[in-house]
Amino acid sequence: MIKHVPSLEKLVHELSRLPGIGPKSAERLGYYILRSSDEYAEQLRESLKRVKEVVHECPSCYSFTESDSLCHYCSDTSRQNDLICVVEDPADIARIDAAGVFRGRYHVLHGTISPLDGVSPEDLRIQELMEKVHKGLCEEGPKIREVILALDADLEGDTTVLYLAKALQDKDIKVTRIAHGVPIGGDINYIDQRTLGRALENRINV
Amino acid sequence: MIKHVPSLEKLVHELSRLPGIGPKSAERLGYYILRSSDEYAEQLRESLKRVKEVVHECPSCYSFTESDSLCHYCSDTSRQNDLICVVEDPADIARIDAAGVFRGRYHVLHGTISPLDGVSPEDLRIQELMEKVHKGLCEEGPKIREVILALDADLEGDTTVLYLAKALQDKDIKVTRIAHGVPIGGDINYIDQRTLGRALENRINV
Repeated sequence: MIKHVPSLEKLVHELSRLPGIGPKSAERLGYYILRSSDEYAEQLRESLKRVKEVVHECPSCYSFTESDSLCHYCSDTSRQNDLICVVEDPADIARIDAAGVFRGRYHVLHGTISPLDGVSPEDLRIQELMEKVHKGLCEEGPKIREVILALDADLEGDTTVLYLAKALQDKDIKVTRIAHGVPIGGDINYIDQRTLGRALENRINV
Repeated sequence: MIKHVPSLEKLVHELSRLPGIGPKSAERLGYYILRSSDEYAEQLRESLKRVKEVVHECPSCYSFTESDSLCHYCSDTSRQNDLICVVEDPADIARIDAAGVFRGRYHVLHGTISPLDGVSPEDLRIQELMEKVHKGLCEEGPKIREVILALDADLEGDTTVLYLAKALQDKDIKVTRIAHGVPIGGDINYIDQRTLGRALENRINV
């Protein structure tokens, strides 16, 4: 509990607005910053400034980039143009890419449809995805063969998958979603029922 | 996982240096800041700057203050000068004060003796406490009647209590520590053995 030090109270207030940082954590961070070197506070300030100045969305996949034109993934000419992997967040891209299986293009929605949180399809980059697909069909852009939906396996992810599947159904494009099932190395004894149910439903021929 | 966006990686690195913020949390905070308004980042930057500029230690109790002379507590002339409550952190002061029982002066050690973490008595404001006591004895400052040690009931707190008790033992000053025992409203059934043991040892006449 800090009292009678307005600037520290203000810093703690600003820190407590961050996600997952409660008043107690914010206070601890505030004290840490106060006790740390001036260089640390200055570096934190500088990186806050720089990230806001130079990072913006890629005009093609809407991931984050510092580049003036396309991002790292969109400017890679060795990737397939006819495959689009739709993800929720920019952070998902590097993780999917590290799997080494997908070499197509990405498209970031920046969230999933969530009526409870007031997130409707208009708040996401769904219109931009439809335009990309439409341009391919009109031969104004690369023809898209398949849209892979790599969204979380939660209620919002499922809602978004259903919405996109419906929006793309009469477009002569294959729409798929990544498989949900038992993780590699996972013990069936420790997997929850819903995952196991999904793994059984989506069984594949061997 | 963020890749190919150096400024975002740098911000995440700086955030992950904060206590209790791991790489994953830092990434989440970085994304949040990137998506939040420019005003928020600016306010956070401004409060970081201001806290480093205006907050310093009070020259008497070593708590944090923005005042050019003494802090809020030290400049209060209605408080008793012959009682000093020794605390670990500036945050402890407001909490102890809110109890409404103590109306003396405070002294912040800025930590406790912890050989394992490399914190020795010289790293704390112990020398300053001894000088304060000494000045009272030489009649150069207010005479100190009692030093109350309000330190945590952990290994480091106990070590510091023993160290201070020894340092002050031949100074003709009463040295006390706050009582540790069953919290008010606490159920004896749910109190750990060490606390209950301490509560029994330190039983008082009724």
